Amino acid sequence: MVATPAVLERARVLVEPSLAAAVDRLADELRLPARYHFGWVEADGSPSDAGAGKGLRPALAVLSAEAVGADASVAVPGAVAVQLVHDFSLVHDDIIDGDVERRHRPTVWAAFGVDDAVIVGDALHNLAFQVLLEDPSPERVAATARLARATTAMIAGQASDMAFDDLPAVDLAACLAMEADKTGALLGYSASVGAVLAGAPAGQVDALEAYGAELGLAFQAVDDVLGIWGDPSVTGKAAGNDLRERKKSMPVALVLSGGGAAAAELADLYATDGDLSDGQVERAATLIAEAGGRDGTVAEARRRLDAALAAVDGIGLESSTVDELAGLARFVADRDF
Amino acid sequence: MVATPAVLERARVLVEPSLAAAVDRLADELRLPARYHFGWVEADGSPSDAGAGKGLRPALAVLSAEAVGADASVAVPGAVAVQLVHDFSLVHDDIIDGDVERRHRPTVWAAFGVDDAVIVGDALHNLAFQVLLEDPSPERVAATARLARATTAMIAGQASDMAFDDLPAVDLAACLAMEADKTGALLGYSASVGAVLAGAPAGQVDALEAYGAELGLAFQAVDDVLGIWGDPSVTGKAAGNDLRERKKSMPVALVLSGGGAAAAELADLYATDGDLSDGQVERAATLIAEAGGRDGTVAEARRRLDAALAAVDGIGLESSTVDELAGLARFVADRDF
Repeated sequence: MVATPAVLERARVLVEPSLAAAVDRLADELRLPARYHFGWVEADGSPSDAGAGKGLRPALAVLSAEAVGADASVAVPGAVAVQLVHDFSLVHDDIIDGDVERRHRPTVWAAFGVDDAVIVGDALHNLAFQVLLEDPSPERVAATARLARATTAMIAGQASDMAFDDLPAVDLAACLAMEADKTGALLGYSASVGAVLAGAPAGQVDALEAYGAELGLAFQAVDDVLGIWGDPSVTGKAAGNDLRERKKSMPVALVLSGGGAAAAELADLYATDGDLSDGQVERAATLIAEAGGRDGTVAEARRRLDAALAAVDGIGLESSTVDELAGLARFVADRDF
Repeated sequence: MVATPAVLERARVLVEPSLAAAVDRLADELRLPARYHFGWVEADGSPSDAGAGKGLRPALAVLSAEAVGADASVAVPGAVAVQLVHDFSLVHDDIIDGDVERRHRPTVWAAFGVDDAVIVGDALHNLAFQVLLEDPSPERVAATARLARATTAMIAGQASDMAFDDLPAVDLAACLAMEADKTGALLGYSASVGAVLAGAPAGQVDALEAYGAELGLAFQAVDDVLGIWGDPSVTGKAAGNDLRERKKSMPVALVLSGGGAAAAELADLYATDGDLSDGQVERAATLIAEAGGRDGTVAEARRRLDAALAAVDGIGLESSTVDELAGLARFVADRDF
């Protein structure tokens, strides 16, 4: 277990006041469910110590400003915008996936109803564009256009993930393409928006974006391993959760597309009618591990981590910030295995 | 019945190719439900002659460019963006309202499921910002910032409308404030975005926006009358539909907030458990008409129409375009009563 990088807390202190101020501008009816989602209040409006997520995206945004020699504060509007887009997607994805819990609390739709969750997500999505366009810097225009493109990719990735449910098998390439859109695009945006707002040269912006996109794939590969073999007390999800939901995550895709007896048995398990039993989930996990799905996914995570680190090396970024970017990447890729 | 203004068809021919090109950029999984929503294809992808809506918003956008002496084509990116935002809101509102039909066809959620409807709406919402920010003119920045503000108001209005369901009564002022947000803001945007993109002076932009906002309230007042007394064969909805759904539309708000015996009886009817009978719906309609709710709403529509016409009078706009704006406003406000 790698120690929590200091930049997460530093970015939270810097960004959260502006994020809270943005959310407070929402209409009365939308403010409570939005503030609940961020972990600032309970569903009845009373204070909560639930806390928000790790704040990976604001931390990346802050580091991307510092990496090009700008003040961290330059990144704040971009950090707020990307956090708002990420949270809009969580609120809507929880509806789509039927997930009733997030960070050990009922999801917005479970607490307030699907109707409220639809409109709260819409409001957060729109607020992201509004906040970023209010920044006085001329670079806000490029930052906003890039946000629109990254969000389009994120939505396309979610749609592709949903479509996987109807396919008998997907291969690793399809899986990576989906996850590059669903997770990589917005992390690439996060890791470059501070540099964009600072007016950095395109080469540095592109390198930081590549770092974030690769980090996104490493993050997702780790997530996919934890989704099958993670400790429920740490992940907050049931053991083998992704198998129970018949997700075509990377370990599954590796085995299904690899052919042979393991692929056939796994495909049969996934084609079973009704809920999978605990025994079937355990058998699927064993099959996937024995056929190399786990090791292959861990190796993919390492490759993507290396690619992320290589992207920001030797291109004239602030060396102390490059160290922080590397530390953050290792923290993300070394979770619990 | 006023003849259909020529500008609706003129704007459709001008704007629809760009709108279709924008929608075609969506990911494979999102393109079919989006194109279905626009009435271009059936749910199985075969060609449809269902047709889109009237295209009021693109027509307003086009007229607003012409009103300030610019070429109609200047308005196209704004017209596409506002149509995309309007349609995203329809797709999501149909989920929220549980409406299974729109323009005599199943709504997107009814045809493709709630999950697809959530994400298709998100994609259209985001595409609006993406398209507008790709316009090369420097005025795209102001046009996009204004779109974000108008859309925030639209979402707040929808949230306020949803909250009305839980209130025993609302008054006309609350009803107008809600409808100014829900309908007026985006129509005000539509009626000014062409002028914004043409770089027109603020005074003309503001006047055109005021025209659109007032037109929105006139439109909504007419809609509220038709929602109770409209001919089902014309409106495509059951007679007394808004009463059956216990909506607190303008005629209802006028009576409920007016006090007296009619208010008490109407409040009792709305507080009835279970579905209202045909007899109860008919009684409510009679009560509202006798207590002045119908006449009051028709009068409100006339006032708002007059205000819309006054807003664009005598401020140096192209006189032939002002005539077209007036014709379009009368067409909207004179529907079927």
